[in-house]
This record gives sequence, C-alpha cells and structure tokens, in this order.
Amino acid sequence: MTEPSNWLPLTPANVRAAHARIASHIHRTPVLTCRTLDRIASTPQDPADLVGTAWEGQTPARPRFRFFFKCENLQRIGAFKPRGAFHAVLRLLDERGKKRLGGGGLLRIVLALALAAATLSIPAYIVMPSISTPSKIASTQALGAKVVFSGSTSTEREAVTERIQAETGAIFVPPYDHPDIILGQGTVGLELEEQYAELKKGEKEHGEDNDDEEPVLDAVFTPIGGGGLNAGVATYFSSTTEEDNSSSSKKKKTKVFGAEPSFEGADDCRRGLAAGSRIETVSSKTIADGLRTPVGVNNWAVISDPSKVAGVYAVSDEQIKKAMRLVLERMKVVVEPSAVVGLAVCLFDEDFRRLVEKEGGEKGWDVGIVFSGGNTTVEAIASMFGSK
Amino acid sequence: MTEPSNWLPLTPANVRAAHARIASHIHRTPVLTCRTLDRIASTPQDPADLVGTAWEGQTPARPRFRFFFKCENLQRIGAFKPRGAFHAVLRLLDERGKKRLGGGGLLRIVLALALAAATLSIPAYIVMPSISTPSKIASTQALGAKVVFSGSTSTEREAVTERIQAETGAIFVPPYDHPDIILGQGTVGLELEEQYAELKKGEKEHGEDNDDEEPVLDAVFTPIGGGGLNAGVATYFSSTTEEDNSSSSKKKKTKVFGAEPSFEGADDCRRGLAAGSRIETVSSKTIADGLRTPVGVNNWAVISDPSKVAGVYAVSDEQIKKAMRLVLERMKVVVEPSAVVGLAVCLFDEDFRRLVEKEGGEKGWDVGIVFSGGNTTVEAIASMFGSK
Repeated sequence: MTEPSNWLPLTPANVRAAHARIASHIHRTPVLTCRTLDRIASTPQDPADLVGTAWEGQTPARPRFRFFFKCENLQRIGAFKPRGAFHAVLRLLDERGKKRLGGGGLLRIVLALALAAATLSIPAYIVMPSISTPSKIASTQALGAKVVFSGSTSTEREAVTERIQAETGAIFVPPYDHPDIILGQGTVGLELEEQYAELKKGEKEHGEDNDDEEPVLDAVFTPIGGGGLNAGVATYFSSTTEEDNSSSSKKKKTKVFGAEPSFEGADDCRRGLAAGSRIETVSSKTIADGLRTPVGVNNWAVISDPSKVAGVYAVSDEQIKKAMRLVLERMKVVVEPSAVVGLAVCLFDEDFRRLVEKEGGEKGWDVGIVFSGGNTTVEAIASMFGSK
Repeated sequence: MTEPSNWLPLTPANVRAAHARIASHIHRTPVLTCRTLDRIASTPQDPADLVGTAWEGQTPARPRFRFFFKCENLQRIGAFKPRGAFHAVLRLLDERGKKRLGGGGLLRIVLALALAAATLSIPAYIVMPSISTPSKIASTQALGAKVVFSGSTSTEREAVTERIQAETGAIFVPPYDHPDIILGQGTVGLELEEQYAELKKGEKEHGEDNDDEEPVLDAVFTPIGGGGLNAGVATYFSSTTEEDNSSSSKKKKTKVFGAEPSFEGADDCRRGLAAGSRIETVSSKTIADGLRTPVGVNNWAVISDPSKVAGVYAVSDEQIKKAMRLVLERMKVVVEPSAVVGLAVCLFDEDFRRLVEKEGGEKGWDVGIVFSGGNTTVEAIASMFGSK
C-alpha cells in the first residue's frame, strides 16, 4: 500500500478528492425512504418487549424518526467495498506507476480488490480460505484474479500471503485498516448528504416541508466490522465543525453513530470504547457475518474520537433478524444481516430512542442508515426464517 | 360500478386521463435496470437444460436483452392494484356524487379498494374468506374497512356479497374485469414509457447510446391473472398505431406480451387463445398465487385482439422460482412469484428467445418487465427455497 510518508490526512476534503477519483468506477447508489418503517420506528415499543432487558419496567421512549436509507446493497458486487478498493488501487498507481504495479501485482482477500484490479488491468492475487463457497471462488476467478487457497485461520492466511509477496513482489492491500480505504468508504457519507439535500429540496417544492432552515441530517448510522466504513463516514461528517469555522452561521452537525452485533462479543468496538482500549481479537458466529472482524488500528483512532463518532451501540441477532424481516417485507429490498444493525438500534435500543426523543423532540430526527451490503442467498434467508 | 352507458372507451387517451385523475394517490414507482440480469438473459441456455422440453436437441437461441423493470412491488400496499381501485372509485364519485356513495358504501374483496375508499372517506365493506391470514385481516381493518367473512369458494363469497348489497345498498366494485379498472392499471404502461425515455435520454447525454432514433421499448411483459393489468398496458401501447396516423414518420410500435404460470392449467389465457375462446374456470395451486384467476370478459376482449397483445406465454413453477432467485440475489429486490413470470419467459422460453434473436438481431430488444407486486414473507421465501 501507499507508504506512510504519502498517507493523506483524514479530512472531509480528502474524502471529496477520493470521490472525484473513484466516481466513474462506482454506482451512485440510491437513497430510499419508507414511511412504513418511519411509522414503526416512531411507535413506542410494547413494555412487554422490554421484559428481560436493561429497560424492563421503564416507560418506552417516544422518538420520531424519518429514515434515509443509503443503498450500498445496490453497489457493484453488492456492497460498499469497491469504494475503498478503487481508491486504494488508484492511489497506488499514482505513487508507483502502472509498470511497477503491473510487475508484481496486488494481493488481497476480497472480491472488491479483484474488481478494481481487473478494471485497471493490474494483476491480482486473491488469498481465499479453501472452504470458500464455489460461487465466490468462481466470481473472483471470473474477474481475472489468481485465486490462491489457504487454511481458514488468520495464521494460515498470513503464511500464504507472505509467501506470495516474497515470490512475486506483489503489494499487499489491507481490506479496511488504511487511510486510503477509509477515505474511499467515506464517499458513502458524501453522496448520502448530497442525496438527502436533493430529497428535502423536492419535499419543499411540493410543500411537504415548510421549514426554512437548510436541511441537515441529524444522524447517520453505519455498521462496524473492521471499521473502515464508519471511520470514513465519520471523517466526512467531521466537516461541519472543522471546515465551517469561517462561516458565521453555526451549521448543525450531523452525528455519526456505529452499530455492531452483540452476539458472542462481536461488539468489540463498543466494549473497547467502554474499557478505554481497542479489543484486538473477536471470535463470534453472529448472523451478521460481515461484522465478525475486530476494528483496525487506524479506524479505531477515528471511531474512538468523540468529536467524530457520537456513540456505538450493539444489538442482538434476534433484533437483527427482526429488522431484516421488516426491510425485506415492507421495503421490498434485499439486505444482508450486517446491513441492518443501525436500523435495529433505532428500532430496539431504548437508550438511543430516548436520546432521539430528548434531542429531536416533536420534530424528531432525520437519520441516514447505510445499508452496507446485500450479499445473501435465498437459502440463507430460508435458514434464518424457516420453520425447521 | 359505473353504469355501462357511462363506460369509457379503452383508448390510450383515456389511460392518460386516468393517470391525471389518480396520480396524486399513487406512487410513481421507479424503473430499475440490472446489467447482470441483462447478461444472464443474453447468454444462450445450456442445451442440457432443454432436455425434456419441446426444444430438446435444438440449438439454443442467442437473443440480446436490455431490461427495464417497472417496480410496482414498491407501489402502495405492495402491488399495482391501487391504480385501478382509485380510478374506479373516483369515477363512481363523478357519476353518483359523494352523498350517494357515502350512504351505501362500496363493496369488494381487495385491500386496494379499502385504501382508495379510506383515502376518499367512503365506507367500504370488504368480503374476505374467513381463512385469510390475520395480518391481512388486520391491515384491511386498520384502513377503516368493515371486514365481512365468507367461506372460501366463489359461491359462498357471492352469497355474502349479495346479502350485503341488499342490506346496505353498497355498490359492488369488481376487482379486475371493468373498463375503469383496466384504464387505471394501464397507467403502469404510461409511466414505464415516460421513464424509459428519461433513462435513454440520460444514456445519450453520457454518450452510452449513440443511436439517433427516438428510443421506443421493443416489448413489455406483464403477468396475466384476471387480466386487468395486461389489458390496461396493451390499451395504452395501442397508441402508436391508433393515434400516430397523422404523423408521417411511422413510429416503431411497442409490442405487449402476457405471461402466466402453466402449473395445473393456470395458463387459461394462453390455452383460451389457442382454442379460440375464453376459459372460464381455473383451479391451480401455482406458487404464483396472484395468477390463479381466470381472465375476465372485458379483459379477454382486449387480450385476444392481436393488434393489442402480441402473444401470451407460460412458464413452470420451477422457472418462476429460478427467476425469483435471480431478482432477489442479483437485483436485491423483493418480488412475489407472480411478478416474475414475464422475466421467466425471457430467460427460459426458446420460442420467445428465438423471436428476439430474429427480430432484434445484433442490437437486441429493450424489454419492459412489470414487477406486479412484492407481497411475500420471509416464511414464504423459506418454504420455497428451504432445504426441507
């Protein structure tokens, strides 16, 4: 990857520059709204549903939500990841030139890199556990990448990775813990903010919104696995304090939140924040399989900065399933379990719901929810919701 | 319903008038494209997959498809039906006035009518089989309709319907077999044509389409159950011959096709066309449960007119499941089985695929696919695709 001496500072301006660099390679995914989900989330929970939780016996909160769903499940390869991958590879090309990269190639473990490398005609080696599903192996190979198999533990994977680096001189591209990746993923936040403004403008023209203030999202939720997406989006939205100091009118700031699954300790980021230091290993089989990874070092530096990330919440696998059912059945949109953890917080976490009731009041909050991906199968849906 | 003496002629102009009348009550649902589905449909079938079919031993066709999916699964109540229901009720209001309707109310068996009646503050009686799912009963009641239960046979239902008409003077609103319903459903075609033109304009501006001709959809597929949707869309697209006679340049005509499930004879329309007369009863348990109805008399008159409908094709339940899987997993959009019969024809019917190869040639065809609805549940998906 780019040398540390060439690393770009994590600023909103560099997210904008990343967007200009990758825009022709990615989809500008749509932002959808759904009044049914707004209504459900804006209805107080049944006190019976709080029995057995930390909120048992308390009066359920009365928050008001209007959601803006950024549909990265409709991104290329079905998830937000090409943003970071394209940005990382394009930055490497700038730094080292095509000839140098064309010699050794690139090395990583995700489909997004194979896509970026294929598009830019750079050889790629993708290390995959030999137990990967045949369809995933086939689609990686279809992109022209050389698939190299390894065992499924991180030790086995690293051994294979080192061997290939030694043999070919390929450059290792980290999947999420690097400034170039963070800046690339941050472009999700940039598009969401622009599209939100367009939607609110449309409402004003139709007389549905008579507020004179310039519309600003109150909050944005992203899932946290490795943390690149959350760190990137938080970097982008740090603009409203950092860069608008010149402006005399103090613009309202969009708060960025993270969400994790709590099952078997996959809420490493939330627990790390509570303990005051990053948790380095996670071993969880949560159904949110994209979020089984511990937060990376560079991402942690952003997420643990309270001026950038306002809070991290965790939800149970049952709550993730309930949220996923609502999105499939009511919004008619296919998401993977990892994509709905933020929505699940808004639906079920009484601490967060009370915050929205208190700070949003009668008007409520406009909340952006990043649907991070949609890579699931009908069999996976069947095993989650079947009657077996 | 409106008296026969007041029936509107089935013309494109009356579809446009219907659209102006209902537009504020319905969603202008999006038209989506999906390159992955275009690619899959444009790949010849494997000869092995044709074994056991009428095309066994033949060379698979090489058609080229570009699909434009009209997403009525994202319509209010999850299906196209409010279009016809709003149009029918608004026409009744014109004919009889609110006072008269407010006295006796309206009577029907579908949720779409409950929505239209509630919106327009007209009492509605909805006759439902007592075996209906509790969620369907609850959502109908939530709209303020009086739900009256009946047995599940058509005889039992008609008896209850007649009793309520006698007792209350309520006006019976047929679900699909009436000119007002046909004209309302036809608005799907009007929007699809406009949205297709907008998308093609966008492509031209981005230099992706250098064709100088004005873009015209080559074909549109809708499912056929009762036939109101297909008859409406065919009515709308009959414009290009009927009304453009004045224009000297002969504009290409959009061909309208219908699709049905073949399981247990649910392809009553296709079979009726082959036999030369409408088939009046159907008893099929096809998974495309919205298409178990025989085609209505008024709809048959349109669909059996070869100047309006170019052909009706049938697909197996297995093919419907394959198409549904592709839409869920690749497009990330939730559809019900009935919604994908047209796509399944394009994917699997060699007669149709050969027609597209022959008439579309190298350039291929731009095909509109009406996704009629998305009312399914995760349990239904599980029972279709689970490993039981």
